[in-house]
Amino acid sequence: MSEIIELARRARVASYVLAEASRAAKDAALHAMAAALRANTDAIVAANAKDVAAAREAGTPESTVDRLALDPARVDAMAAGLEQLAGLNDPVGEVVRGYTLPNGLELRQVRVPFGVVGIIYEARPNVTADAAGICLKSGNAVLLRGSSSAAASNSAIIAVLRDAAETSGLPADVVQGVPTDRAAVKELMQARGLVDVLIPRGGAGLIQTVVSESTVPVIETGVGNCHVYIDADADLELGLEILLNSKIQRPSVCNAAESLLVHAAVADEFLARALPALAQAGVTVHGDPKVVAAGNDSAVVAADEDDFGTEYNSLDLSAAVVDSLEAAVQHIRRYSSGHTDAIVTRSQSAARRFTQAVDSAAVVVNASTRFTDGGEYGFGAEIGISTQKLHARGPMGLPEMTSTKYIVTGEGQLRT
Amino acid sequence: MSEIIELARRARVASYVLAEASRAAKDAALHAMAAALRANTDAIVAANAKDVAAAREAGTPESTVDRLALDPARVDAMAAGLEQLAGLNDPVGEVVRGYTLPNGLELRQVRVPFGVVGIIYEARPNVTADAAGICLKSGNAVLLRGSSSAAASNSAIIAVLRDAAETSGLPADVVQGVPTDRAAVKELMQARGLVDVLIPRGGAGLIQTVVSESTVPVIETGVGNCHVYIDADADLELGLEILLNSKIQRPSVCNAAESLLVHAAVADEFLARALPALAQAGVTVHGDPKVVAAGNDSAVVAADEDDFGTEYNSLDLSAAVVDSLEAAVQHIRRYSSGHTDAIVTRSQSAARRFTQAVDSAAVVVNASTRFTDGGEYGFGAEIGISTQKLHARGPMGLPEMTSTKYIVTGEGQLRT
Repeated sequence: MSEIIELARRARVASYVLAEASRAAKDAALHAMAAALRANTDAIVAANAKDVAAAREAGTPESTVDRLALDPARVDAMAAGLEQLAGLNDPVGEVVRGYTLPNGLELRQVRVPFGVVGIIYEARPNVTADAAGICLKSGNAVLLRGSSSAAASNSAIIAVLRDAAETSGLPADVVQGVPTDRAAVKELMQARGLVDVLIPRGGAGLIQTVVSESTVPVIETGVGNCHVYIDADADLELGLEILLNSKIQRPSVCNAAESLLVHAAVADEFLARALPALAQAGVTVHGDPKVVAAGNDSAVVAADEDDFGTEYNSLDLSAAVVDSLEAAVQHIRRYSSGHTDAIVTRSQSAARRFTQAVDSAAVVVNASTRFTDGGEYGFGAEIGISTQKLHARGPMGLPEMTSTKYIVTGEGQLRT
Repeated sequence: MSEIIELARRARVASYVLAEASRAAKDAALHAMAAALRANTDAIVAANAKDVAAAREAGTPESTVDRLALDPARVDAMAAGLEQLAGLNDPVGEVVRGYTLPNGLELRQVRVPFGVVGIIYEARPNVTADAAGICLKSGNAVLLRGSSSAAASNSAIIAVLRDAAETSGLPADVVQGVPTDRAAVKELMQARGLVDVLIPRGGAGLIQTVVSESTVPVIETGVGNCHVYIDADADLELGLEILLNSKIQRPSVCNAAESLLVHAAVADEFLARALPALAQAGVTVHGDPKVVAAGNDSAVVAADEDDFGTEYNSLDLSAAVVDSLEAAVQHIRRYSSGHTDAIVTRSQSAARRFTQAVDSAAVVVNASTRFTDGGEYGFGAEIGISTQKLHARGPMGLPEMTSTKYIVTGEGQLRT
């Protein structure tokens, strides 16, 4: 039997215990894990130092090294995240639907854990603790497959979490690490029946690989080519604030705006204000011919076709002038990744039309795209932002980490 | 561009119109489709006669031919099914969650159609009208890929439905047929991004093929290795009635029982009554050594390991004696397909333990397994019974044929 199959089988056995664990038992484990992370800060930081040194030696960009690096404050933040999870409601056992059938059968649809969840993720080692905590709280055993660049950090964190789980009375195997070699991840993606769900968290390349190679059901997360559309009826001052916040407040994340659409009726006036402001903020605008023409000497370069489909994750922004709300909708249908798209308008009918016609995980009226986030939505925890339509769409909190089952209770009902 | 890609693109365009269609417009289309089916009964029955003749010529078993055959009454039943759909609530637009965030953003999670749904199904041509109707009511454009053995029937039905949709003002392309050749279905399974969900309906072989070869998200349906467990505290008379109803009321369907487990404490008494009753009903029992020993001269054959994992869909039943409720749970965890598993018991604690520990789409206490069905559950329509944990589990009605999106409305909120 391969190592992955063996890990998955152990996860399955642990998942049966975890699925029946009370909220109190799960919360106690989360608190024990948080305390153990804090108590083992030195060991975790020391393990991380090896990963950081190796990354620097390999010539990794300093921004990536920063995402990889742990210090005592970051370890403490991981612990605090686990404690916060302990304070959230337990999704398991929630009755989603319930009624009595005409024949007297009592039907209840109840939330249950998936069972075994696999998370495939990239550099940041804090994801290890976050994902383990969310899976534990939602009753799922987890297989954590981090990147090889964080292998020492992740191993140290997982060892601490496993010990703490066991000390608190749960099986250590509710949290397991998966080897980082390519063969292991391939097997993980083929472990249908042993692994219930795979969630890739990372760049577009990782997600595409998992989506196309996995026979285990996948929840696709995170690619965000998000639009801000300035309608003919927009308050332009508000529009500029929303555009700038959406683009520059944190350009590297998936809910940052990547594309600006402006209605032709207000394009001259809006662009005259927006382009200098964007340039001043260091944003390179990749414009269609009308935007380029409006740009004069500010930082506008000619967009090519690829720009409109690109998630830059940087201080770049594609921009186009559209002749109508319908043209904006068409553009978004063609290019959006279905993450978050926003309209700025004072018109009730434009807002209604946009929110109806744009089919994205989040459709926003008169606010920044940056709010598409489990924390902002009040979920208290987030495992990622689903950009697929099956099972979960948008930020995924604890309920999205569960399935349901029907419990049907009778007194001898037979089918006739 | 391949034919499938072209079909999927046309479905996508039609899906935009359908997603925004009012309930009234969709219900009018359903009534128009029902009327058109009735008006074209002769043409549909004539097309079906070709399929039936070809099937008989190919030596198809008469039971399969019967599932394929249409007569005016069956066409009328298809029409009635569409009319019934028109009477159901529209799932699109339902607010699943909604609240105002601390910063004043109004958040609503709203049901929306998937967009384009592909259904891959086997012989019975009534599925064509059922699936088209359910997809239309839930706002989804549908690509229908029936079996080649029903090609003439399906083409005739689809032509009638398309005409009726168009007459009622919706695009004809809300319903399209897919060629039945193998290359076409392969392309359909790879059309990720163009097709939002694939639902296979049919035998285990078909479902396995779709699950393993599709990059489009799949909802797995229907394989049912369902158990009836007779607990130590069971009312044995009730247990026998439930067992017989679960096994023989309609043995060919997925919610029929395939396996009997009996607690050792009542095994002798229960089997002494059950085995003759099963034999009299024509059921062949495939028993473990204890059941064989209890069988005397009745129709019990020795089970091999494969029997306990088999969905017979026939008058066969595997049977084993277990030493405890926990042993029954272990057996079910090992062999169940996760469709429907039932316990017969008078004990509250046994019922509680069984419903908690058995992780199947439906867990039943003191009733027949045969109730796991969208119609019985009061859904009014059913596209299949999901045996996977992602998105939908158990009978899938109209809400299960939708995704959601978040609509977030503000007045200039920015992220800080």
